[in-house]
Amino acid sequence: MKRREFLSMTLGAAAVTQMTTPNRRGPNEAAMPHPGVWKFSFGTPEPITPVRRRRYAPAGDRMAALPRVEACPVTVTARTTRRGVVVSVPLEPNEMVYGLGLQMQSFMQRGLKKKLRVNADPVIDSGDSHAPVPFYVTTHGYGVLVDTARYATVYCGNKPKKTRRNAQSGADEPARDLTEDVLPAAYRRFRFNQRSEVLIEVPESAGVDVYVFGGPTLGNAVQRYNLFAGGGALPPRWGLGVWYRVERDFTQQDALALAADFRARNIPCDVLGLEPGWQTHAYSCSFQWSERFPDPAGFIAKLRDDHFRVNLWEHAFTHPSSPIYDALFSHAADYEVWDGIVPDFLTPDGRRVFADYHERAHVAIGVSGYKLDECDNSDFTRNWSFPELAQFPSGADGEQMHSLFGLRYQDTIQGIFDKRAQRTYGLVRSSQALAAPYPYVLYSDLYDHATFVRSVAHASFSGLLWTPEVRDARSDEDLIRRMQSVILSPMALINAWYIRNPPWKQINREANNKGELGPDWERLEAACRAILELRMRLVPVLHAAFVRYHLEGVPPCRALAIDYPDDVKTWPVDDQFMVGASLMVAPVVAGQARRAVYLPQGAWRDFWSGTRYDGGRTITVDVPLERIPMFVKDGSLLPLAQVTLHTDDPASRRLTVLVCGDRPAPATLYEDDGAVPARLAEVTLSWDAATRRGSLSRDGEPAGPPYEVIAWQPLEARG
Amino acid sequence: MKRREFLSMTLGAAAVTQMTTPNRRGPNEAAMPHPGVWKFSFGTPEPITPVRRRRYAPAGDRMAALPRVEACPVTVTARTTRRGVVVSVPLEPNEMVYGLGLQMQSFMQRGLKKKLRVNADPVIDSGDSHAPVPFYVTTHGYGVLVDTARYATVYCGNKPKKTRRNAQSGADEPARDLTEDVLPAAYRRFRFNQRSEVLIEVPESAGVDVYVFGGPTLGNAVQRYNLFAGGGALPPRWGLGVWYRVERDFTQQDALALAADFRARNIPCDVLGLEPGWQTHAYSCSFQWSERFPDPAGFIAKLRDDHFRVNLWEHAFTHPSSPIYDALFSHAADYEVWDGIVPDFLTPDGRRVFADYHERAHVAIGVSGYKLDECDNSDFTRNWSFPELAQFPSGADGEQMHSLFGLRYQDTIQGIFDKRAQRTYGLVRSSQALAAPYPYVLYSDLYDHATFVRSVAHASFSGLLWTPEVRDARSDEDLIRRMQSVILSPMALINAWYIRNPPWKQINREANNKGELGPDWERLEAACRAILELRMRLVPVLHAAFVRYHLEGVPPCRALAIDYPDDVKTWPVDDQFMVGASLMVAPVVAGQARRAVYLPQGAWRDFWSGTRYDGGRTITVDVPLERIPMFVKDGSLLPLAQVTLHTDDPASRRLTVLVCGDRPAPATLYEDDGAVPARLAEVTLSWDAATRRGSLSRDGEPAGPPYEVIAWQPLEARG
Repeated sequence: MKRREFLSMTLGAAAVTQMTTPNRRGPNEAAMPHPGVWKFSFGTPEPITPVRRRRYAPAGDRMAALPRVEACPVTVTARTTRRGVVVSVPLEPNEMVYGLGLQMQSFMQRGLKKKLRVNADPVIDSGDSHAPVPFYVTTHGYGVLVDTARYATVYCGNKPKKTRRNAQSGADEPARDLTEDVLPAAYRRFRFNQRSEVLIEVPESAGVDVYVFGGPTLGNAVQRYNLFAGGGALPPRWGLGVWYRVERDFTQQDALALAADFRARNIPCDVLGLEPGWQTHAYSCSFQWSERFPDPAGFIAKLRDDHFRVNLWEHAFTHPSSPIYDALFSHAADYEVWDGIVPDFLTPDGRRVFADYHERAHVAIGVSGYKLDECDNSDFTRNWSFPELAQFPSGADGEQMHSLFGLRYQDTIQGIFDKRAQRTYGLVRSSQALAAPYPYVLYSDLYDHATFVRSVAHASFSGLLWTPEVRDARSDEDLIRRMQSVILSPMALINAWYIRNPPWKQINREANNKGELGPDWERLEAACRAILELRMRLVPVLHAAFVRYHLEGVPPCRALAIDYPDDVKTWPVDDQFMVGASLMVAPVVAGQARRAVYLPQGAWRDFWSGTRYDGGRTITVDVPLERIPMFVKDGSLLPLAQVTLHTDDPASRRLTVLVCGDRPAPATLYEDDGAVPARLAEVTLSWDAATRRGSLSRDGEPAGPPYEVIAWQPLEARG
Repeated sequence: MKRREFLSMTLGAAAVTQMTTPNRRGPNEAAMPHPGVWKFSFGTPEPITPVRRRRYAPAGDRMAALPRVEACPVTVTARTTRRGVVVSVPLEPNEMVYGLGLQMQSFMQRGLKKKLRVNADPVIDSGDSHAPVPFYVTTHGYGVLVDTARYATVYCGNKPKKTRRNAQSGADEPARDLTEDVLPAAYRRFRFNQRSEVLIEVPESAGVDVYVFGGPTLGNAVQRYNLFAGGGALPPRWGLGVWYRVERDFTQQDALALAADFRARNIPCDVLGLEPGWQTHAYSCSFQWSERFPDPAGFIAKLRDDHFRVNLWEHAFTHPSSPIYDALFSHAADYEVWDGIVPDFLTPDGRRVFADYHERAHVAIGVSGYKLDECDNSDFTRNWSFPELAQFPSGADGEQMHSLFGLRYQDTIQGIFDKRAQRTYGLVRSSQALAAPYPYVLYSDLYDHATFVRSVAHASFSGLLWTPEVRDARSDEDLIRRMQSVILSPMALINAWYIRNPPWKQINREANNKGELGPDWERLEAACRAILELRMRLVPVLHAAFVRYHLEGVPPCRALAIDYPDDVKTWPVDDQFMVGASLMVAPVVAGQARRAVYLPQGAWRDFWSGTRYDGGRTITVDVPLERIPMFVKDGSLLPLAQVTLHTDDPASRRLTVLVCGDRPAPATLYEDDGAVPARLAEVTLSWDAATRRGSLSRDGEPAGPPYEVIAWQPLEARG
């Protein structure tokens, strides 16, 4: 593993309001504003775009550390029409496309049409998404960002131009198509073996900037895009522990009692989230503590003493009873939502009024962060949001604002924490381009577990984080399987906002709220506790993965195709993903007794049994309920923490290192002082094959509480 | 019943390519181009719109026969923005809105946002539709047409403007809201008791024309809109019989054998439809007879001798092997679909090349009409259609063409039949504004029976016809219920394109195609035969309803709110509809043992039992499998034909007249010579209460085969 050159870095880099474009030349002429990044400018781009309204500067120096790419890997052309701008980027035969944000119903995008429109509950594969992103990467090792806040339509290699054919037609196809043998049957309806193009139509614009991110690999292109965004978010360590959101009407007594019960029953938990009832008015929001929380500062301090952080649910639509209503009124849209005004987060005053109150009323008394709800649009969910024809004081219209609302809302809240040099971690229901530096995880109301899992992998192509949060469960098995998936994601969240008792005490909502516990709840609790304990063991690995996200742009949880772009069989795999450097997981949904797992090229060891498998093939494994299929790269070290109830516990730095294979490569962890900018010390775990002994070495001074290895444990086949 | 003033009229009126607008004045000033129709012109409208590219002239004289409306009932305003045009039309408290085309997932539109985008398989209530129409009517008795081929977004009274509120907010609501007591619980999420507006955003346009259609009633506004379109379609009588589409790979021998079997087994049938296999190449289309039909002229003639008409499936995308490919090439879009070219039906040459071949190869040898498939867009169905950014030789882009494709495709084919002075009746999968004069019925692949039924009622607000065609059935009960619904719709269609035997012989697809008949198929066949026989009995009523559609713009099958706009309880009723003048039906879906039926104000008689009910209330009725709930207006005459196997049979004009109540009003039928223009003779059925005898009188000479009454049968409670 390559040594890091950075031992400390800024987390919240200086804000920039406008990217300098010194290299801008004529239309259709690529400039290279950053190493391996090319910019094409067409016509007169709009002033309100993700790049032009960015907060964080590109991490140019870190891009320079990536492999050099000499020439722009693809030529972008564009034409303006009466309708807007049409961008064209060529596609080669069998070149596969990923990204476009959180496309929950599909994985590889070639052959599809996507309208990148922000919307909750996208039950159809149309491009509507909580987080559509006008960015894609391909297996030819580059990425393309179309810098727009418009609802762009992307035709992904599926619109052939008219050509005069002879009567037999289509006779000149190359023989081999990946759909014939390599890809699963679901792809047989496509033809991928012809030259084509990605067409992106950007409406209402007289021009657009397009950025191309070189690789040379697909994974490098993702990295370069994330570094262009400013680098990935680095959450506080406590953010990587267990999250639990309490019932919406909980009082502070209810929440304290639950917290005490968790500690008493050895349920790991780092963060408690409060849902709507903490406010005097929630739809729209007052942002004021309700009578359910008569002493918020005392409540938060009491929880903090017991090592819980508090996170607050809210949305941005501001009720007339809110203390900021009057000050915000002139910095809001011309239409209302739920009787509340819609803040214009693109104006400095709108941001300031909103952030100042949040800091004073919440963050200053210890609130650790927010869950930013309802910032996606509502075309499929009762049409409650502002219209696309709305006008904002910044000059944005409703369409642009829908695209940027989640992003600029994160940004407004992030401003509080950046100013206080304090880390946060939270949830958000909408995002768009250049989201990587924001420590927010996407979530939604969708309940299909398989889709939840697919979205973890999918989000990784576009600088997004996704949690398959646990709410509903139809059975004990379903609850356990969902718990297993969520603890392997960027946020281990149990969202119990509509049940008064934890789901393992009673999965039936009605009975749960009546206080009728399940007949065998302690057994189910024990199973869930064991799963949460596994999360706690993985925190060092997850933390290291986030440091790598922050420094190098490598997503902490990611699709196999990012790590194995040369292994064609990884390309369609959407139900497995990498976690950190050396762990691959294959979540299971209720009802599966066995499942197929594709092992990428190399060799792998079953995390549970130690069995060694050669990679480059699909195996079928039994999936007993207590185990989620997990595989460790053969030839790696996997450090696992001692189980603790929270990440403040010093024992959470005491490691048992799994030794996989005879000559494992070193593994890297980071000690972290938790500050902004973060001071990080790189810790290297090494294994000496000759002596069969491991060692921990630190580059420089410890930063934050030190890691300590208490055991080295070969992972070998048992039984 | 008022006497008709028209005894003959033109069916296919002279084509007009551009509506004259002599009264156009300044922006935002209403002109009255037709009686009770006001036109508002804003900015510079686009040249390609439904009105500007219409074929049929408005039926101005027939509009004059409607009640006079002195003043424009509503004031339309508009503003142009960078995005396009925003039209605003006020809404009063509790004013309900219907229409916007075929909105399959919702009925009353107030409170909803709809993007009027052509798309198949609209599983979400977003405005995507086979037939979105920028026209709505309200319970205040007027209609509004926004003349655009753009994907307009309609915000139907659900976007409140920002207003400074006090902290208590929303205290000034009027007390009563229809959602509180009158409307079903599903509407409780709305607030209808405030002043609001309908906002229509038309993208990419520098102006738009808006037409307001006066009532004074909602039903009158629908009539006026349909007359503005040119009047409703008048299908040939055989089109109102039973339709059956054969399996896609049937040979001419297969089809002839099936036809013979139908006659032998007394299954009524007027039309056989051929599916893709009749062509040498179907995706895209060659339009050439395949080897399965070595003698198409002989085949058609043989069927015609046995009183079957032949209808051909096709779509418009033209395969390179087609004889018209070369001639059409330069009159096609710049993108392909399924290797075929996309004809530009907005150009005279495109229409001519397409129509000439169809006439020569099909219509001239006896083909009676077409099923025009795949002319809707495909955002939710694998994205096969042309992109919105496509360019057509006429100057239309892909968005405009998607809106108009179905309409102008119907128009191209209609040109053949108009030229030949021949009537046709067919199917189409997409339509838009001013569709009433086209004798085409919408259909789709959606299989939810309740949605199918709702769509019959819904289509009636927008000048559309819908058939809940029978394909799939999950059980014998499901098949029977679907058959019962379809025979009460504008087209009684069994679409067996993927089964070789009629569904009543075997509902399981696989077994059906293996020739394994159901264990008790003769019993199921008998049940289905009885249903088809009921259709045949209703043909005179349906024909008279279509004449009224043609002459007066009254939809043949229609929502209760059209006939009973003053009866608020009819407003939300979407699962019952009127058929003709005096029949109301309440279809049943499988699994229902009883159902609620709302009886509008007046009195009603159960069609089956004769039981009399006072209206203005909801009753619950048993729904034995062999009966679909049908109610006849008390005080009316319902003429029923003798059951025949086809409408050519003279016995199909022999009537048994149900006499409902003591002093029934006269009923009107029309004898029809089947020609174009149609010569119609009005036939009046009267009942003399004193003598309790009925009589038939004819105004003028018979036109076509004469009606004859063979029995007058009082409909009175039995048992």
